[in-house]
Amino acid sequence: MNDEDVLTGHQQELRRGTVVMAALATLRTPGYGYGLLSVLEKSGMSVDANTLYPLLRRLEKQELLAAEWDTSDSRPRKMYRTSEEGLKLLAALEAEWNSLAASLSALRSAHPHEPLKELS
Amino acid sequence: MNDEDVLTGHQQELRRGTVVMAALATLRTPGYGYGLLSVLEKSGMSVDANTLYPLLRRLEKQELLAAEWDTSDSRPRKMYRTSEEGLKLLAALEAEWNSLAASLSALRSAHPHEPLKELS
Repeated sequence: MNDEDVLTGHQQELRRGTVVMAALATLRTPGYGYGLLSVLEKSGMSVDANTLYPLLRRLEKQELLAAEWDTSDSRPRKMYRTSEEGLKLLAALEAEWNSLAASLSALRSAHPHEPLKELS
Repeated sequence: MNDEDVLTGHQQELRRGTVVMAALATLRTPGYGYGLLSVLEKSGMSVDANTLYPLLRRLEKQELLAAEWDTSDSRPRKMYRTSEEGLKLLAALEAEWNSLAASLSALRSAHPHEPLKELS
């Protein structure tokens, strides 16, 4: 594994948990999967369609998103919106995020960079 | 899966990526795995030993942490410190974290809560 792969792996791990927050926050305004994809892209949080669509189905199954079929067009499309349960989860995840941010910031200032001392 | 499990699952996913940042930031000051465990606990980011120790070995293998055996005690202990590569990754992950925070905040304000309109 080269350095680039290591970086990418850790970045993806960091990003993974935030996609759920982004989807729940964005779909407080009802929208389609395709629209969400482009909204995330524009916001700088680009997510692959092959990651996003299964995630939306998972969140729907967990009743965090409500879905309705929009049949007004020739091709029926699923419209999602964040459910009441989803809003609660979003609030909980935002609280967790803020707590993690505070912990990281405290750890950073309490543990400055210090070269390893020679062990006796 | 009940609501509690759903919440826990999503919280863990959110937390997972941040443990690497916390370890790299904290071990800028050299320390033992056990010490890191209690530092994380005190900072509000408690991590299971069965998660942390394999992570430390993975980070060492990726040369993000440097390790030395401290044999001054009767029981040899491994002392870790964040390597130059690890410092670079930490900076990259912190930049990613800040970018995700900005995106989430922008998505949140651009997409207010709005009940689903009746589809025609």
